[in-house]
Amino acid sequence: MTSAGAAPIKVGIVGGTGYTGVELLRLLSQHPNAQLTAITSRKEDGMAVSDMFPNLRGRVDLRFQSPDKAALEQCDVVFFATPHGVAMSQAESLLGHDVRIIDLAADFRLQDTQVFERWYKMPHACPAVLEQSVYGLVELNRDKIAGARVIGNPGCYPTTVLLGLAPLIGGGRQLIDTTHIIADCKSGVSGAGRKAEVGTLFSEASDNFKAYGVAGHRHHPEISEQLQALAGAPVGLVFVPHLVPMIRGMFSTIYARILPQALDTDFQALFEQRYADEAFIDVMPAGSLPETRSVRASNYLRIAIHRPDGGDQLVILVAQDNLVKGASGQAVQNMNLMFGLPESTGLEHLAILP
Amino acid sequence: MTSAGAAPIKVGIVGGTGYTGVELLRLLSQHPNAQLTAITSRKEDGMAVSDMFPNLRGRVDLRFQSPDKAALEQCDVVFFATPHGVAMSQAESLLGHDVRIIDLAADFRLQDTQVFERWYKMPHACPAVLEQSVYGLVELNRDKIAGARVIGNPGCYPTTVLLGLAPLIGGGRQLIDTTHIIADCKSGVSGAGRKAEVGTLFSEASDNFKAYGVAGHRHHPEISEQLQALAGAPVGLVFVPHLVPMIRGMFSTIYARILPQALDTDFQALFEQRYADEAFIDVMPAGSLPETRSVRASNYLRIAIHRPDGGDQLVILVAQDNLVKGASGQAVQNMNLMFGLPESTGLEHLAILP
Amino acid sequence: MTSAGAAPIKVGIVGGTGYTGVELLRLLSQHPNAQLTAITSRKEDGMAVSDMFPNLRGRVDLRFQSPDKAALEQCDVVFFATPHGVAMSQAESLLGHDVRIIDLAADFRLQDTQVFERWYKMPHACPAVLEQSVYGLVELNRDKIAGARVIGNPGCYPTTVLLGLAPLIGGGRQLIDTTHIIADCKSGVSGAGRKAEVGTLFSEASDNFKAYGVAGHRHHPEISEQLQALAGAPVGLVFVPHLVPMIRGMFSTIYARILPQALDTDFQALFEQRYADEAFIDVMPAGSLPETRSVRASNYLRIAIHRPDGGDQLVILVAQDNLVKGASGQAVQNMNLMFGLPESTGLEHLAILP
Amino acid sequence: MTSAGAAPIKVGIVGGTGYTGVELLRLLSQHPNAQLTAITSRKEDGMAVSDMFPNLRGRVDLRFQSPDKAALEQCDVVFFATPHGVAMSQAESLLGHDVRIIDLAADFRLQDTQVFERWYKMPHACPAVLEQSVYGLVELNRDKIAGARVIGNPGCYPTTVLLGLAPLIGGGRQLIDTTHIIADCKSGVSGAGRKAEVGTLFSEASDNFKAYGVAGHRHHPEISEQLQALAGAPVGLVFVPHLVPMIRGMFSTIYARILPQALDTDFQALFEQRYADEAFIDVMPAGSLPETRSVRASNYLRIAIHRPDGGDQLVILVAQDNLVKGASGQAVQNMNLMFGLPESTGLEHLAILP
Repeated sequence: MTSAGAAPIKVGIVGGTGYTGVELLRLLSQHPNAQLTAITSRKEDGMAVSDMFPNLRGRVDLRFQSPDKAALEQCDVVFFATPHGVAMSQAESLLGHDVRIIDLAADFRLQDTQVFERWYKMPHACPAVLEQSVYGLVELNRDKIAGARVIGNPGCYPTTVLLGLAPLIGGGRQLIDTTHIIADCKSGVSGAGRKAEVGTLFSEASDNFKAYGVAGHRHHPEISEQLQALAGAPVGLVFVPHLVPMIRGMFSTIYARILPQALDTDFQALFEQRYADEAFIDVMPAGSLPETRSVRASNYLRIAIHRPDGGDQLVILVAQDNLVKGASGQAVQNMNLMFGLPESTGLEHLAILP
Repeated sequence: MTSAGAAPIKVGIVGGTGYTGVELLRLLSQHPNAQLTAITSRKEDGMAVSDMFPNLRGRVDLRFQSPDKAALEQCDVVFFATPHGVAMSQAESLLGHDVRIIDLAADFRLQDTQVFERWYKMPHACPAVLEQSVYGLVELNRDKIAGARVIGNPGCYPTTVLLGLAPLIGGGRQLIDTTHIIADCKSGVSGAGRKAEVGTLFSEASDNFKAYGVAGHRHHPEISEQLQALAGAPVGLVFVPHLVPMIRGMFSTIYARILPQALDTDFQALFEQRYADEAFIDVMPAGSLPETRSVRASNYLRIAIHRPDGGDQLVILVAQDNLVKGASGQAVQNMNLMFGLPESTGLEHLAILP
Repeated sequence: MTSAGAAPIKVGIVGGTGYTGVELLRLLSQHPNAQLTAITSRKEDGMAVSDMFPNLRGRVDLRFQSPDKAALEQCDVVFFATPHGVAMSQAESLLGHDVRIIDLAADFRLQDTQVFERWYKMPHACPAVLEQSVYGLVELNRDKIAGARVIGNPGCYPTTVLLGLAPLIGGGRQLIDTTHIIADCKSGVSGAGRKAEVGTLFSEASDNFKAYGVAGHRHHPEISEQLQALAGAPVGLVFVPHLVPMIRGMFSTIYARILPQALDTDFQALFEQRYADEAFIDVMPAGSLPETRSVRASNYLRIAIHRPDGGDQLVILVAQDNLVKGASGQAVQNMNLMFGLPESTGLEHLAILP
Repeated sequence: MTSAGAAPIKVGIVGGTGYTGVELLRLLSQHPNAQLTAITSRKEDGMAVSDMFPNLRGRVDLRFQSPDKAALEQCDVVFFATPHGVAMSQAESLLGHDVRIIDLAADFRLQDTQVFERWYKMPHACPAVLEQSVYGLVELNRDKIAGARVIGNPGCYPTTVLLGLAPLIGGGRQLIDTTHIIADCKSGVSGAGRKAEVGTLFSEASDNFKAYGVAGHRHHPEISEQLQALAGAPVGLVFVPHLVPMIRGMFSTIYARILPQALDTDFQALFEQRYADEAFIDVMPAGSLPETRSVRASNYLRIAIHRPDGGDQLVILVAQDNLVKGASGQAVQNMNLMFGLPESTGLEHLAILP
């Protein structure tokens, strides 16, 4: 869908057979300024996209192409909805054709290549491109994103934890004990992707709850790097992800101890002011209890601030849709910024409730 | 949301605290030609709509009003998302103010008032209005709807069964044995509404499957009346509804025996031709298997035609979202027709998958 | 667990890494006369069973063994919880060691080897063994099972459809039109097994409903062969399976037209009499609506008989747990019979509700 | 079910129409030494228990009686599966007839009657009985329970948090900072009971995740009182409960900071030793990730100890079935102790997986 007037943004998607891929297709096919131009899949070459994702029947008539056939270099922007490692192998070539890149995997999330290599078990293919890439968390990096050629789209967990902590950290603030932050995070099963694996079968993941990745999760160094950048010093974080028997949705319960000198702070006001101009961040009234369905299939993220018994423990509740604000919606938000469009363009769908 | 140019349609909603109510709010608040003007609830007078339905936060700033305060007579159209019996008690008064009426309950679905009284245990309050009302199944009654002042919006089950059978019945066709049709129907739990009842608690309805209403369901006479109108003669139907542990979605498996003289019919072609110009009816390719998620939160309805082993049994599979095409989306589709708008206006949201 | 007195039955399980395997382990480890002796898995040789299935921790200390190491020939009975084709390849050898065999796959379900080959795409490896094997639907074949050396344990769908129809067919009865029976069946996702496949991922199968296998399902010829044996003539059956977003549970809605001469039959009494002495078949009172959770994790099967509006259509509702009465529980029931134990031994667990 | 030999324990249940009630019925009807004698419900007088809970059909033939008709004083023990306030109003009378009492509500959980009154909004009816009552957490109070006449059966959340912390606290141990413990807890929806409420409808609670009770939850003072008793000093606890879209299951993620002098402690060994003789407490191997389905419908509780990056934060993961070990199973465990039976009697059912 493209609106009259300006030339549409020609969009390519690499690896569109997963959940972030179909979500990009859903959002971009309804975006007034985007023109879906090419979508690649090595395995599904020739298959109609709507044969794989029947919700697109009659509305998206694209077919998957093998990467060699797809004219990605003629696109204005290419989204990588691929496993880690793919975007960095194609970035330099695409940039040479003046194509902008938004990677939904991890290739451009971590500036420290040693950390990247430790967690992703591969050397970084293009450190020079990485250096000029921007971490695409819009509410923190809006200005840089507008001028970026390569975006590392944030992980889903990091989006919630960073937006839940950003007002408390940085700018010389001394509000919380940054050596012992706890992020107890919960994700719907779609966060695990559309891979055939026993652990995410319906009969395994339904009617069940568990923690996972307690010994180490790739989003941990990503959060830590960003928190350190905000704080100007290392931050101590315990991060425990859990799997919730729901398709979409992510909920983070963040615990931070208030420093003695900051006990008088009005944290509710602090958050409200920090996000007052944000279209997609909803700081709910004091005492609120966000729920994931209030953002289901939308780009909104809702935050509530609690301070049980008025004590020195701050509890921050953050809810988002892991596939929208936590992935594809945020990617489109980045695209909008990069191409000078109003940031909310094509992203104002209301959440589906019930 | 209203587009420039034409004056917006002023919309009132009576009884907006249920699922069809919040779905109307979601659709109409994103509709380019509608202006949400008033919403009533006797119990929730003064409450912000978005306090009850947090998906609307920041986007719908209406408050519930008790019916006596709401200026419904100044609306162009009023939707009744109420229990049965409410719309008919207010219809004449509103019509007197030139307000059009779309009732999502059953007051204007059955033309036979005796049948109405038997199933709904109340006399009909305005038979004269009923007589001029139109059954709002767009794909069957498009022309009449355009000129109607009162619409009985179809039940969710009837929408699937009637659209699944319409190409086979009427117009003098002798294709199937209309004395023994079977509709084995399955509904998500939201079809039971947002009433506090033990039977639809999560812990009762989840991880469970059952039939209900086998001894009699109010949608049965509704389907029968419409089938009879199509066929020009009584139609024999066994209708067995079932409850599926999912929020939204409705799936009907319809069995009809092909008459001996019709065994050569190309039923696939018949359905494709019948619905060729319909924006929201998707006759899938032969052999397809529709699934409810392919229409989740959208106004589309998908149909597939099967004939096992090439025998004389026709199996018609129909999937829709019970709250959209089965209720509020269809109601907006009716509104569009009644006000001369393109039928798809505000209804083209793609289904949410996964 | 073994009771004092009689020597325990030494039990082997081939291929215990799937859902019927873990269910056998659960049932047999709590069975007073069974002694779990060996369990094989080619891939998981050496792994503790309770590492794969943590519900067994502290209670089952068996380890998987590769088939060559497991002393299956020293068992009294071996259950095959394997893919189709495995049991028939080992049957003769085990029988040579006087080991009885209960196959939970399809190798000994179909007596017609041509039908077997058409549906399972492999020649039958031991037609002679097949010929002496017994179809292990206890309520139909109790006496033969007691003397059998090889049991073909019924498929889950066939168990519900056959028990739902058996009182109506055979014994010279002329009650229903056996040329046009319809079985509209619904299964929980565990019926698809514990294989890593995209279609049964949580994010695909949850909050969704669909039909599948409409063009042909392997349980169709199995049902047909048994119905024909009962009726003494071919039976016409349309069988449409559906997938329900629940882990366990199976529900069949069976439609049969009553023959004119049988319209006066008391079908409720007919079913009650037929199953009066059955420990696991519950013919519910007239008007009842069985639900799958009423049999969850139990060996019970509940049936209700309906006749809408007193017409000529009989609607039979059947609910079971697909993994217990539909698979492993029935297999243990067969074992009990084969070894002269009371049929209910170890199978009286009450269903889990909620 | 009663075994030969000893006289059975005559059991009464007051208020058996909720989920803890039906779970008591399931467990006790399969218990070899219990004889279900009476069950009361004011509203359902005369109704067969199995008409409300069809999983009991054919196995429990009791009928609900109004309280005045039920001969509770002839029972050996009465379980109260009632709202708060009922047990304390009947306790003295029953004790006068030498009936022992196990209350599954909160009347005998809090020794501090002022705290009770603040949280439950009613004065305590029998402080003298309260004083001699015992908090029925078997693993902490085994000896006292054996001699008790009145048991306050623990809340579901307290069971997980207390058993997750007990090895760390008390006995003069200085292991963790007891001023800032965090319990991030998650419960299945059955924890909310079988009351008709909008918030726990399937369409509200399914496919959703949220925190609740952040401003204060009745289990908080219960946990605090017990922790203080263990520690010999007040303990600082932040407790945040969450609602998980699953029927059964409870998972607590507990965060405690290790004191500097205790950094060398082998916490895995500490927990293993503490619970070495417990039949129902499973301290899993280091690195394990418990999941709620591993205890579904069973009385087991599984614990895993983590220490991310070997730092000073201890993360304790605890999983139980909220209706069994968190309620009715624990109540039966208490009964066994009170009547001199082996503690595991009737409670060894394996968890249902999948």
